[in-house]
Amino acid sequence: MAVKAQVLYDFTAEPGNNELSVQEGEILTVTNQNVGGGWVEARNSRGNVGLVPEDYIEINPGSTQAPATKYTDAQNQGYNSSSANTQGVNGNETWTATTWSNNNPVDNWNYAEQEPAGNNGSIYSFDEEWDDDSDDGKSTVGYGGSQMEEGGTMQRGGAHSTMKISLNKFPGFSKTPNPEVYLLTKSVAKGNDKLPIYAGEVGPVWLYPQIQLDCVVADPKKGSKMYGLKSYIEYQITPNTTNRPVNHRYKHFDWLYERLVEKFACALPIPCLPDKQVTGRFEEEFIKMRMERLQGWMSRMCRHPVISNSEVLQLFLNYRDEKEWKLGKRKAEKDEFVGVKIFSTIDPELPELDPGQVEQKYEMYSQFTRSMDNSVKELLAVGHLHWKRCTGPLQKEYRQIGKAFQNLSSVFNTSAYPRESTLTEALSATGKTYEEIAELVAGQVSEPKKDLHFLMETNNEYKGLLGCFPDTIAVHKAAIDKVKEADHLVTMNKISQQDKHIMEKNLSTMSYALQAEMNHFHSNRIYDYNRLMQFYLEEQVKFYETIAEKLKKALGQYTTM
Amino acid sequence: MAVKAQVLYDFTAEPGNNELSVQEGEILTVTNQNVGGGWVEARNSRGNVGLVPEDYIEINPGSTQAPATKYTDAQNQGYNSSSANTQGVNGNETWTATTWSNNNPVDNWNYAEQEPAGNNGSIYSFDEEWDDDSDDGKSTVGYGGSQMEEGGTMQRGGAHSTMKISLNKFPGFSKTPNPEVYLLTKSVAKGNDKLPIYAGEVGPVWLYPQIQLDCVVADPKKGSKMYGLKSYIEYQITPNTTNRPVNHRYKHFDWLYERLVEKFACALPIPCLPDKQVTGRFEEEFIKMRMERLQGWMSRMCRHPVISNSEVLQLFLNYRDEKEWKLGKRKAEKDEFVGVKIFSTIDPELPELDPGQVEQKYEMYSQFTRSMDNSVKELLAVGHLHWKRCTGPLQKEYRQIGKAFQNLSSVFNTSAYPRESTLTEALSATGKTYEEIAELVAGQVSEPKKDLHFLMETNNEYKGLLGCFPDTIAVHKAAIDKVKEADHLVTMNKISQQDKHIMEKNLSTMSYALQAEMNHFHSNRIYDYNRLMQFYLEEQVKFYETIAEKLKKALGQYTTM
Repeated sequence: MAVKAQVLYDFTAEPGNNELSVQEGEILTVTNQNVGGGWVEARNSRGNVGLVPEDYIEINPGSTQAPATKYTDAQNQGYNSSSANTQGVNGNETWTATTWSNNNPVDNWNYAEQEPAGNNGSIYSFDEEWDDDSDDGKSTVGYGGSQMEEGGTMQRGGAHSTMKISLNKFPGFSKTPNPEVYLLTKSVAKGNDKLPIYAGEVGPVWLYPQIQLDCVVADPKKGSKMYGLKSYIEYQITPNTTNRPVNHRYKHFDWLYERLVEKFACALPIPCLPDKQVTGRFEEEFIKMRMERLQGWMSRMCRHPVISNSEVLQLFLNYRDEKEWKLGKRKAEKDEFVGVKIFSTIDPELPELDPGQVEQKYEMYSQFTRSMDNSVKELLAVGHLHWKRCTGPLQKEYRQIGKAFQNLSSVFNTSAYPRESTLTEALSATGKTYEEIAELVAGQVSEPKKDLHFLMETNNEYKGLLGCFPDTIAVHKAAIDKVKEADHLVTMNKISQQDKHIMEKNLSTMSYALQAEMNHFHSNRIYDYNRLMQFYLEEQVKFYETIAEKLKKALGQYTTM
Repeated sequence: MAVKAQVLYDFTAEPGNNELSVQEGEILTVTNQNVGGGWVEARNSRGNVGLVPEDYIEINPGSTQAPATKYTDAQNQGYNSSSANTQGVNGNETWTATTWSNNNPVDNWNYAEQEPAGNNGSIYSFDEEWDDDSDDGKSTVGYGGSQMEEGGTMQRGGAHSTMKISLNKFPGFSKTPNPEVYLLTKSVAKGNDKLPIYAGEVGPVWLYPQIQLDCVVADPKKGSKMYGLKSYIEYQITPNTTNRPVNHRYKHFDWLYERLVEKFACALPIPCLPDKQVTGRFEEEFIKMRMERLQGWMSRMCRHPVISNSEVLQLFLNYRDEKEWKLGKRKAEKDEFVGVKIFSTIDPELPELDPGQVEQKYEMYSQFTRSMDNSVKELLAVGHLHWKRCTGPLQKEYRQIGKAFQNLSSVFNTSAYPRESTLTEALSATGKTYEEIAELVAGQVSEPKKDLHFLMETNNEYKGLLGCFPDTIAVHKAAIDKVKEADHLVTMNKISQQDKHIMEKNLSTMSYALQAEMNHFHSNRIYDYNRLMQFYLEEQVKFYETIAEKLKKALGQYTTM
């Protein structure tokens, strides 16, 4: 079935790159989502086919029945459908399931001895399958078949069909979890499981730890098994609490991510593991980029007061041996306080809120996260264009200017006229300077840890994070709808007056959770963008000063007259 | 007849600008040379039509019979045809005769009372016709009908047919002047008419005046006549010798140019009046640009030791009243020492040269001017591309980056989260800074007296100058061929042994003239490019420092953490 997409921003094709110029609002037919490198192939209404940056389009989720081919921004659609029908697929995922199907559990389950086929040339896909530890096999199957349990667990598809496996590789909601089970719950978790919320200066806040957890992801090492047939990368993760490194492969990060989604995604946005977006022409580049993004993701998880304190993250960072790791894994997979049940562990030590107030706050949060999502995407779009311009035509142009000055110098050298060596040498130096500027221009945007690169990476992270909010907020909106029905249910004798009061109290708890989470988001956002902008501007100042310095040096070579 | 053109450099079209991507070596059919602004419309072999920068193509002069539609770079063809058949049209002219036919003498002669029709919208063409002073009418007709007199005067077409008038507006050689008349001349001009050549440090040099002549072209004033039906611009020219301003209209510059070509072009490259290339969306802009270029042309004429000393330039700069001007004009138009006869006024006080030495030098000069012509065109081509990029997509991109930062600031402002006004204000300031950078980026290349603008103007001037060398050198090569024939002519009794010696002596004089001229060219070239590059680099340093300064200021607005 044809996948349609709407164009979000004007995009002008660079000639000779197989690109397609598109205009905001235009509807395209996506012809290939597996192009890679941030591009999709699409056809416009005039039948022209070409590449379009994926950030520039929004694929219409209604246009296809196969969730596996759904697109990253599909989740935004869920935003508009107010409650039950939020069908968004994981908001941050830019690789389609088919690209990665060679890594899916069933393939590997059935063909464990074979090298996965259909490897995409320019995409590095190390062996991250789930079959190498035999004791994990059971737990993989144990993910369960039913797509949505009555408890409203945010559970991904099971492992028994390709379709479901694809979903499994795209964790997210297949529909909004039903908050009803929680709303009627009376008990509150005790002890360590309790998640308190306090009144902070900015409103309701989570309990922050004394020392903020963080970790360093470093030292990627290539390992292999099956007599070298399969290779993988192992990263060293060192938490600041123990300062003792643990090793993890990508599949372990993926496992952690799935646990966090299961347990927290109804209350907290859990951004996807970012690495599947990574492409690189060289293996080294790919590993470096993946590591950088895993670092960003891990730091974000560590900085979260609820997640950082969770047993599963503590296990991931602190396990002492294989035995502890395996036992911890099994325990985490059996955790009962997952999905909407997470709210029953939340204990706001604050006065109960009125449902009306709650609803108003949700609208504000919806509005803000949607606006910021748009703004971040705009920044990514212009940043992407600028990146393309700087590494492409602009770099080429400065090189050509440099070459033209050098050629003029060579011609002048043949004049046989005396006393012009100062000029020809200065001209040649000027030419070389412009060639250096060409490299600086491209470097400012493309080199890791530089200007635009960092700007893009951080905004990409936020794009992923913001993509999770609609689903999280949808759970809260569904809860409001349930509470609104409560009066009617009391009349119908389906629930007691007492039940209704519990529902309202629990709704208030949910609201505090969202407020605490929004305040956490805001404080992180301010910190991150402050740091980002300072870094970006510092680098930009350096960049322009370096160019001025180089040109000044070239200028000094000319004769003063 | 279809005008063909060969593509000199690859050019990539910017989408949406009606441009045509072309590749080096490709043959195009020119469909419209009157587009203006440095562009021509052309069709490629696949039938696509679009605009191509005129600097990127070379129109094939063999492809059309109508000289009026010949193209600027046609002259380069003359370069390759070694002697008699140098058919080059004026090398520097980018406007076709048809564009300017409303100004041609015959139109105005016949329809003096009418406003010229067919005025091209965006091209300012002030009334520069020749009919307003009745006493000039005769002299216009007096340009004569025969296209090439036996004396080898470098004379343009007559004024009696449209075709010839078109040629009249494209001064240049219709064929290489025959140097024979001069070669057999025994007499040498005396007194003031004598042009000495001395042995300088760098070789043969012209006699340079004690004080270098220069002038300031300024204060353009709009005048009108015929009850306001026709308007013209009068410029004030003030020479440094008298410090007394004289007024001239464009047509007077044109008259001066024609006299200088007639008199000197066999010996000295006389670059075209540059102004016909000027376009501007606003009259003011047009007048400013034309004045700037007239200034450049006049300064170059004043700086030339032979031209600066000529009666006609002295008249142009120093006439005291209308009567003196008119008398001087008539005298100049009757000057007999024009064309190849100019060499009979040259008196090198140096030992006679061997014809073999002479030929070798000519080859070297040919080679050098051709190489420099290519190099200057390359610089113009990349400069033009860069100009387009900076004023178009790059300026737009920096504006978009600025806008994106400001939008993010607006969104952050709606968060209702306390303590973020520092960030939103800093973000907004950053956005404004990038909008300012957008204007700086476009300004560095497009504003008069700025970086790339000056680089382009100076190189355009040199392109015009270099375009004259092939024709000048062709006269010298023709003289060598004549001298080579001399032995045969002696045998045939057509000339005496004495005549042969005179020819060889005269060839030596011609050679000294060219050497003196090349040395003048080299010394000017070194001066001009030194000055140009210093100015360009100084401006570029300022440009990058200004940006760094602005960004530093924006950076200072963020909270230090």
